[in-house]
Amino acid sequence: MKVLIVGLGLMGGAYAYKLKNKGYKVYGTDINKKSIEYAIFNGFIDDGSAKPELFIAKSDIIVLALYPNLIIDFLKKYSKYFNENQIITDISGVKNSFIYEAEKLALPASYVSHHPMAGREKSGVNYSKEVSFKSANYLITTTENSKQYAIEILKQLGKDLGFGKIHVIDCNKHDNVIGFTSQLTHAIAVSLVNSDKDKDTKYYIGDSYRDLTRIAKINEVLWSELFLENKDNLLNHIETFEHELDNLKNALKNDDREKLKEIFINSTMIRKEMDK
Amino acid sequence: MKVLIVGLGLMGGAYAYKLKNKGYKVYGTDINKKSIEYAIFNGFIDDGSAKPELFIAKSDIIVLALYPNLIIDFLKKYSKYFNENQIITDISGVKNSFIYEAEKLALPASYVSHHPMAGREKSGVNYSKEVSFKSANYLITTTENSKQYAIEILKQLGKDLGFGKIHVIDCNKHDNVIGFTSQLTHAIAVSLVNSDKDKDTKYYIGDSYRDLTRIAKINEVLWSELFLENKDNLLNHIETFEHELDNLKNALKNDDREKLKEIFINSTMIRKEMDK
Repeated sequence: MKVLIVGLGLMGGAYAYKLKNKGYKVYGTDINKKSIEYAIFNGFIDDGSAKPELFIAKSDIIVLALYPNLIIDFLKKYSKYFNENQIITDISGVKNSFIYEAEKLALPASYVSHHPMAGREKSGVNYSKEVSFKSANYLITTTENSKQYAIEILKQLGKDLGFGKIHVIDCNKHDNVIGFTSQLTHAIAVSLVNSDKDKDTKYYIGDSYRDLTRIAKINEVLWSELFLENKDNLLNHIETFEHELDNLKNALKNDDREKLKEIFINSTMIRKEMDK
Repeated sequence: MKVLIVGLGLMGGAYAYKLKNKGYKVYGTDINKKSIEYAIFNGFIDDGSAKPELFIAKSDIIVLALYPNLIIDFLKKYSKYFNENQIITDISGVKNSFIYEAEKLALPASYVSHHPMAGREKSGVNYSKEVSFKSANYLITTTENSKQYAIEILKQLGKDLGFGKIHVIDCNKHDNVIGFTSQLTHAIAVSLVNSDKDKDTKYYIGDSYRDLTRIAKINEVLWSELFLENKDNLLNHIETFEHELDNLKNALKNDDREKLKEIFINSTMIRKEMDK
């Protein structure tokens, strides 16, 4: 299987490195020539160039490891090189804002999106080797146009990348649930850290504060885009969360110990279910 | 040095076990006889009984490892056994609601409070051996009445328990900052988990959601008490947090990408400072 990785950043580099080790023929492209040189020198890719058109025609799978807003640009620019045997995919954290346009632009190739739920505190291809997918979810995000054989090939790709769990999920449902588990989570961590008005806080923190705020260190370009592209879902989730926090605040204001206990028993039950 | 541990739960047991290994003479008391038997059998304590009065007079340090509301009850009941050479302390997570009354009831002994900032997801003396204080903060919480020699002895206790960092902090400041780093953090995690209305969420979570919500598994009796005893500080912090979340929500509503970036840059800077 021949794969072209478009964008040799942290994730693109990790894809290249892992697939190369699984015996795929891997090509790489990036606007940054140093990233290509690094990837070749470290054996992540068989060949690379800043010109994707050199590799598109001979690749079976094209993985767009790009910021969401660059996906459509890429498809427009290079659509003339696509063919009907190819599968094109991307690793973006939100899907609805571009997926239908991407499917059309990719024709005659088959476009099926996916989302690797792996952490990215660092950035750049020089950290790619550190990325582990072992305990991470790999979500194949489909629409009514997605072809079954493309889904099967993406499943195999996820297995070969070493992902712990592989799920197929509708794009709409994906953006809704990710708005909750990922974007709301980041919105909360960021707001918590920004509400710290005491310069001495750092001397008095425990593991809970540390764990909860780790993701407040955030790539502002990527995340402002993810937030805006999933705006409606995220706003809904923020409001549901605020409603729950208000419940707790009111129980506290009213010295309602029984209500507080009930709230804690509920959260304990839901969170334990998640560990199963 | 002779120490009496009052309350052989998870934390009391951990104190006993670690101090015994450091050469302290350790007595233990609990209303549950099985906990005492376990602690003797496993070498956590030299002697124990459900009757604290058997050990109070011969102890140099008395550690009240009790729920906050039981501290005053204990002091009232046993004050006649205290002497002026003794130091009495507790491990409660909030202080202001009882500290001044405790100081008076403890006389002629010296009462100085402290707060071991160590996790307690599990409970019970049979998990005490698993507790590690190595990377945890140990806060000695003082008032204008705290005697210096008592503070020094508590510092030594913290060192012998193996705590990573030992700080002395005023009780008022303590309750304010803990309202932020601990109680607000738990309020947020609980509200986030309770706002999960989708039974499939667990299939689509990443590390960030898992880390942020771990503390939503919470002991409802202890935490409703901690929340209520630190009510004013916690309500203030919840409101400051809500204000920050509103800022983010408004930037999103207004499609204000630059404002979002600014919010993310700010949180990244504050959180990085915390790692130093």
